Amino acid sequence: MTRRTDPDEPGFDIEPWVVREPHLALDDLPQTESVFALSNGHIGLRGNLDEGEPAGLAGTYLNGVHETRPLPYAETAYGNPEAGETVLNVTDGKIIRLLVDDELFDVRYGELLEHERVLDLRGGVLRRRVHWRSPTGREVRIGSTRLVSLPQRGAAAILYDVEPVDGSIRLVIQSELVANADGQIEPSDDPRAAAVLRDPLVSEEHYHAGPLAHLVHRTRRSGIRLAAAMDHRIEGPDGTLVESESSPDTGRVTIAADVPRGGRLRVLKYLAYGWSHTRSLASVRAQVRGSLAEARHTGWEGLCALQREYLDDFWARADVEVDGDPELQQAIRFSLFHVLQAGARAERRAIPAKGLTGPGYDGHAFWDTESFVLPVLTYTVPDAAADALHWRFDTLDRARERAVQLDLEGAAFPWRTIAGRECSGYWPAGTAAFHIGADIADATLRYQHAVTDPAFEREVGLPLLVETARLWRTLGHFDVERRFRLPGVTGPDEYSALADDNVYTNLMAQRNLRGAAEVVGRWPEAADAYGVRDDEVVAWREAADAVHVPYDERSGLHPQAAMYLDHDRWPFGDTAPDQYPLLLHFPYFDLYRKQVVKQADLVLALYVRGDAFTHEQKVRNFEYYEGLTVRDSSLSACTQAVVAAETGHLGLAYDYAGEAALMDLRDLNHNTRDGLHMASLAGAWIALVAGFGGFRDHDGRLTFDPRLPEGIDRLAFRLTFRERRLLVEVDHEQAAYVLEEGDELEIRHAGEPLVVTPGAAVVRPVRVWPSRPRPPQPPGRAPMERVPARVRGS
Amino acid sequence: MTRRTDPDEPGFDIEPWVVREPHLALDDLPQTESVFALSNGHIGLRGNLDEGEPAGLAGTYLNGVHETRPLPYAETAYGNPEAGETVLNVTDGKIIRLLVDDELFDVRYGELLEHERVLDLRGGVLRRRVHWRSPTGREVRIGSTRLVSLPQRGAAAILYDVEPVDGSIRLVIQSELVANADGQIEPSDDPRAAAVLRDPLVSEEHYHAGPLAHLVHRTRRSGIRLAAAMDHRIEGPDGTLVESESSPDTGRVTIAADVPRGGRLRVLKYLAYGWSHTRSLASVRAQVRGSLAEARHTGWEGLCALQREYLDDFWARADVEVDGDPELQQAIRFSLFHVLQAGARAERRAIPAKGLTGPGYDGHAFWDTESFVLPVLTYTVPDAAADALHWRFDTLDRARERAVQLDLEGAAFPWRTIAGRECSGYWPAGTAAFHIGADIADATLRYQHAVTDPAFEREVGLPLLVETARLWRTLGHFDVERRFRLPGVTGPDEYSALADDNVYTNLMAQRNLRGAAEVVGRWPEAADAYGVRDDEVVAWREAADAVHVPYDERSGLHPQAAMYLDHDRWPFGDTAPDQYPLLLHFPYFDLYRKQVVKQADLVLALYVRGDAFTHEQKVRNFEYYEGLTVRDSSLSACTQAVVAAETGHLGLAYDYAGEAALMDLRDLNHNTRDGLHMASLAGAWIALVAGFGGFRDHDGRLTFDPRLPEGIDRLAFRLTFRERRLLVEVDHEQAAYVLEEGDELEIRHAGEPLVVTPGAAVVRPVRVWPSRPRPPQPPGRAPMERVPARVRGS
Repeated sequence: MTRRTDPDEPGFDIEPWVVREPHLALDDLPQTESVFALSNGHIGLRGNLDEGEPAGLAGTYLNGVHETRPLPYAETAYGNPEAGETVLNVTDGKIIRLLVDDELFDVRYGELLEHERVLDLRGGVLRRRVHWRSPTGREVRIGSTRLVSLPQRGAAAILYDVEPVDGSIRLVIQSELVANADGQIEPSDDPRAAAVLRDPLVSEEHYHAGPLAHLVHRTRRSGIRLAAAMDHRIEGPDGTLVESESSPDTGRVTIAADVPRGGRLRVLKYLAYGWSHTRSLASVRAQVRGSLAEARHTGWEGLCALQREYLDDFWARADVEVDGDPELQQAIRFSLFHVLQAGARAERRAIPAKGLTGPGYDGHAFWDTESFVLPVLTYTVPDAAADALHWRFDTLDRARERAVQLDLEGAAFPWRTIAGRECSGYWPAGTAAFHIGADIADATLRYQHAVTDPAFEREVGLPLLVETARLWRTLGHFDVERRFRLPGVTGPDEYSALADDNVYTNLMAQRNLRGAAEVVGRWPEAADAYGVRDDEVVAWREAADAVHVPYDERSGLHPQAAMYLDHDRWPFGDTAPDQYPLLLHFPYFDLYRKQVVKQADLVLALYVRGDAFTHEQKVRNFEYYEGLTVRDSSLSACTQAVVAAETGHLGLAYDYAGEAALMDLRDLNHNTRDGLHMASLAGAWIALVAGFGGFRDHDGRLTFDPRLPEGIDRLAFRLTFRERRLLVEVDHEQAAYVLEEGDELEIRHAGEPLVVTPGAAVVRPVRVWPSRPRPPQPPGRAPMERVPARVRGS
Repeated sequence: MTRRTDPDEPGFDIEPWVVREPHLALDDLPQTESVFALSNGHIGLRGNLDEGEPAGLAGTYLNGVHETRPLPYAETAYGNPEAGETVLNVTDGKIIRLLVDDELFDVRYGELLEHERVLDLRGGVLRRRVHWRSPTGREVRIGSTRLVSLPQRGAAAILYDVEPVDGSIRLVIQSELVANADGQIEPSDDPRAAAVLRDPLVSEEHYHAGPLAHLVHRTRRSGIRLAAAMDHRIEGPDGTLVESESSPDTGRVTIAADVPRGGRLRVLKYLAYGWSHTRSLASVRAQVRGSLAEARHTGWEGLCALQREYLDDFWARADVEVDGDPELQQAIRFSLFHVLQAGARAERRAIPAKGLTGPGYDGHAFWDTESFVLPVLTYTVPDAAADALHWRFDTLDRARERAVQLDLEGAAFPWRTIAGRECSGYWPAGTAAFHIGADIADATLRYQHAVTDPAFEREVGLPLLVETARLWRTLGHFDVERRFRLPGVTGPDEYSALADDNVYTNLMAQRNLRGAAEVVGRWPEAADAYGVRDDEVVAWREAADAVHVPYDERSGLHPQAAMYLDHDRWPFGDTAPDQYPLLLHFPYFDLYRKQVVKQADLVLALYVRGDAFTHEQKVRNFEYYEGLTVRDSSLSACTQAVVAAETGHLGLAYDYAGEAALMDLRDLNHNTRDGLHMASLAGAWIALVAGFGGFRDHDGRLTFDPRLPEGIDRLAFRLTFRERRLLVEVDHEQAAYVLEEGDELEIRHAGEPLVVTPGAAVVRPVRVWPSRPRPPQPPGRAPMERVPARVRGS
């Protein structure tokens, strides 16, 4: 076991299956609350201390529960969204306060003799162990184990134990539900918006009886009804007193006992949440009380066993093994665990950029979901990928309305949203980023290729592909040379905007248009129901075939968009280290008009539309854009890792993989406090599997071309694909392909077609690519060098 | 005399020297208040009825008196201005209420037997004549004459007469000063901003004595102290009672008299305003009371005589005669009168886009001033042009600070402002429109060429030219072919934004850079004081010589900016007439990415940088852009008139000239209520003088190439130029050049160099250009056809 000593970083031990914080670092509380967040995609509990205080940022989130707020503009303009949506910190059910001989347990007072928190990636629980001496000198040991159930999506539970160390102690436990506490994010610095979010929950009912209490509220403007309920099983000495009370914003169960040395007071708190936009108070109350009853019926041991079972199944399908780099091994499992938590039970609701781990980005979902998270879920938890796309399908009406408002056909999906409405208040980097539509289409096509699911394809995939294709057809036009052009759009790189013919966007639109044409061909009746006309399909194919991809013959480079290479380079030499991220120190107009890349854009095209570039083009482009890319976004390192690996820069790819994987464990962007970076966590998988595994899936053909960096001795990963489970094991000499489940499968290894049959590993030597000299990044913007473990001697 | 009968238009009679409204049209009150506004550039009084009610929009403006307000953003970004400025409707001193036998005079009640308002363009007064029968049947005649003194900038006066018609009547006149009345514009729909502007004036002092009263207030946030004072001379029958009173927001003088038939009650109200950002209460009070005393001392007859004298001088220098088109004749004089009113005594304060005639655009000044208003003032009231540029000079520090904020050198002048601070809350059409700097430089160079004023050149011109040149040098860059490029800026056309190498901007930057280099050469010591280095000047010249001007060889067209001709045409055929102006019905992203022109941009370059294009290029470009230009802005028709005339489209030029000249008299854009369109009024002069007079002044050389449209028999105009006054008289056969003042002058007529000497007209035949087929405008967007008077038979 390695223990980090750098005081600037959250101090997590490096272990393969747990994330352990051996000592409480109060200053890091905001970050560790995100790291230790538990969620099932439906309910999210930040890793706040049981006793509620101190807290970095208290947070309890229910997927989709938000408040609307007006979006202000200094100058109004047609089409600007008038209302935004903000995730709410809802009724907090995590709180268990403790009084030790009348002294409130608070880690800031008295003496903390021991404090350990452990996120168990196999057990799916957060464990805490405390040894505390109160200011008056009384010592207790406290243990808590917290679980948000993956199989029972409405339920959570906390097992809370207190043991006197130094003699009999009077203990009081107050287990609470608290609504309208602090912890709302303040969106921008608009006081009106802050006002909207002050006390956003309006009480509708409060109730208590015995060890049970529930609260029902409704959000003030968005009108969402939500209920929180708690029940308790208490084990204490004879004479243990249990009382309950409730008020509009509080439910409380108080347990008091005199506990002798060697004795214990144990409180098992069941917690349930239910909410609805439409259902009645009676119905939402019934739902939450039902979830509570189900959890009680399952019991603590049952909940833990089912959680373990769920995760065993997950790891069997999803685990990635990284021999030789224990830190990366831990990080990839941490990443996969949180990606699972975000998507597992989202079930037709969004997977936000921060999952349900924090209020960052107002709780909005972006293209992060389709372009980074869903590629992972598609090959590991395909049902969750289907659910996420189902959510987009459910918002189609709003996307169609937005298209009408924008004078376009088809569907214009929102750049950022909770409930499907466009919430971007800055259209050049919001509405204009139309690639979101192609990203959704790409995720749809990927899922359809990876999963045999005709019902999905007919009912969800086809509408998504058709309506996004319609958008592209009306968004673009044919120029005099009959090239299909897409002017004035914003690509992935947020340091550019409103450019013509962004290569990524154009190539993704091409895939979108072709995918729509193909799915219509497979499901003509379903297409009829969507009014798809033959001439429309012809037009899609024509547009796709004619998509213009700017290319500069002289340099052999693809400009990120038209005119890009004519722009001046950003004056990197004159930019001080503390002027990053640039967007906080320079105006957009200047960023937009110079060659500087916030996050992979052309390089992302090299990866996801790698089929559209020659190897030589990839090499030239990658090396050129490396010199411009400052990675002021967490949506970059993983893509750079993949393309670096492909273009002969394995050491650099390793550095980028480390950055993607450690984004949150090391708080590299200094904003983990607002929630985890789901896309970067997913990107860790992409960096390893697509980067070092060389995995690509263009048009549903699985191809591999593995190559390991010096720091990794062996890489193993599993992919779920059309009722099969494929294990890929790679070391520096060879790659082995093993079918763990399902029928024979055709793949490619290093360009060679292979058939993998059940029961027999297919082993092939790894192709050796010449290593190329490391291209320079902008000064000071190279990734942290990742020294192989054997070199640093750990 | 022609009287219009179209009920949809404000009904003004067509007369050469007055604008007469023969009957009160209550529905048109908001527009006529703008048309009848009186101003001297220092004080502005909207043409509100004396009695205050009804009012379309009550307005009293003092140049520079504004309130600051926060600018809200849905998403914050570096460099966004945090505070805006809004013109205030200040203490209203126009109000004279009348009670007729206890019945309040109100045009909406009783019977209006006669109501005439006349704006006298030679007298510089607004006269009103009323014959009213009260609801109880009493009849009075009321006469009022209002004047805002051009020679005495702090003073205004109203002569108010009431005569009983049908017997002795008890009359009461209440003459008031009223602060914090309604009439503030509500900027955007931001309730916070509205709140800021509710009761914006905080009382500091109120005072009354005899027929005199004054109020002193201070603006709540911007801290500007302002005082309004009134005094009265009263002529009435014996026993006329005079009382006065004051309270924090009101000063009132009440006059009561029993007036016999044949008698008269006459009130002469003197009004004075004073304000300061810095001076003390005592000082501002002294200032306003001093202005009042001065006005009293001058007396009514004196004020009127001086006003007439001032205007006689103005018309001698500025009058434009248009024979054959009485409506255009009236309109050009109306235009010149208001341009004079806006600029005459602005004296180191801004000339706002609406002058001081209304609260439109928050009272901000834009490039309208330098690019449209100053060309007129330079050749008619050059001192006013110098003052306006002096104002820009006075704001240089703020423009320098803005440049630093934007990481640029030199000065970044604000897109919209009152006091010099950038107030644009939408940067793609604000800060990014850097051409404002070149427009200021152009106006500076024009003034320097037209007026022998070395002190100005050294102290004002040089700093303005140097600091704007510095901006261009850091805003642009040299590409690999050593062309000087200006990517990512917004040109004049607001239906495009953030394009590369806007032709207008690049050519104007070129002129700016060269002008700066030249002025530095003339004033080396002054340049030293601004730290101008030799290598800087070399760099300006290099950049100017290398400025890239995109040109499409295939079509022989100049794209408005790079890539412009690659964009799709706006679907004009699918756009309904009620979808104009487009910006209210389509999102910017779509306007920006298509070929559709809100206002002349490339065509403006053809005019102001006509020296950079061949005649054939002008013809091709003009005809091409005609098909794209929808004129959703009032800053377009005049430019189109000029270039249409130059390219052989005289009929079309005539239509555009009419549109520019009648913008406000006919309320063509339906927003004259918010104030007059100063740039369009100035544009009427530009259309006639530059369009039909063929006047150009590239680099200080006066050239003419006149040609009249069918509807105009004779055009005469005067230009003040280097202590000379040149009269130009044109008919369909010949042009005569007469020096009315000053020494001999070299000009060009139709390309031929001429010397005009005192006392001898130089007469030359007019060049006949072949007329070209009228190019089509977008459907429904052709200018209103202007039928020559002889054809329509009036």
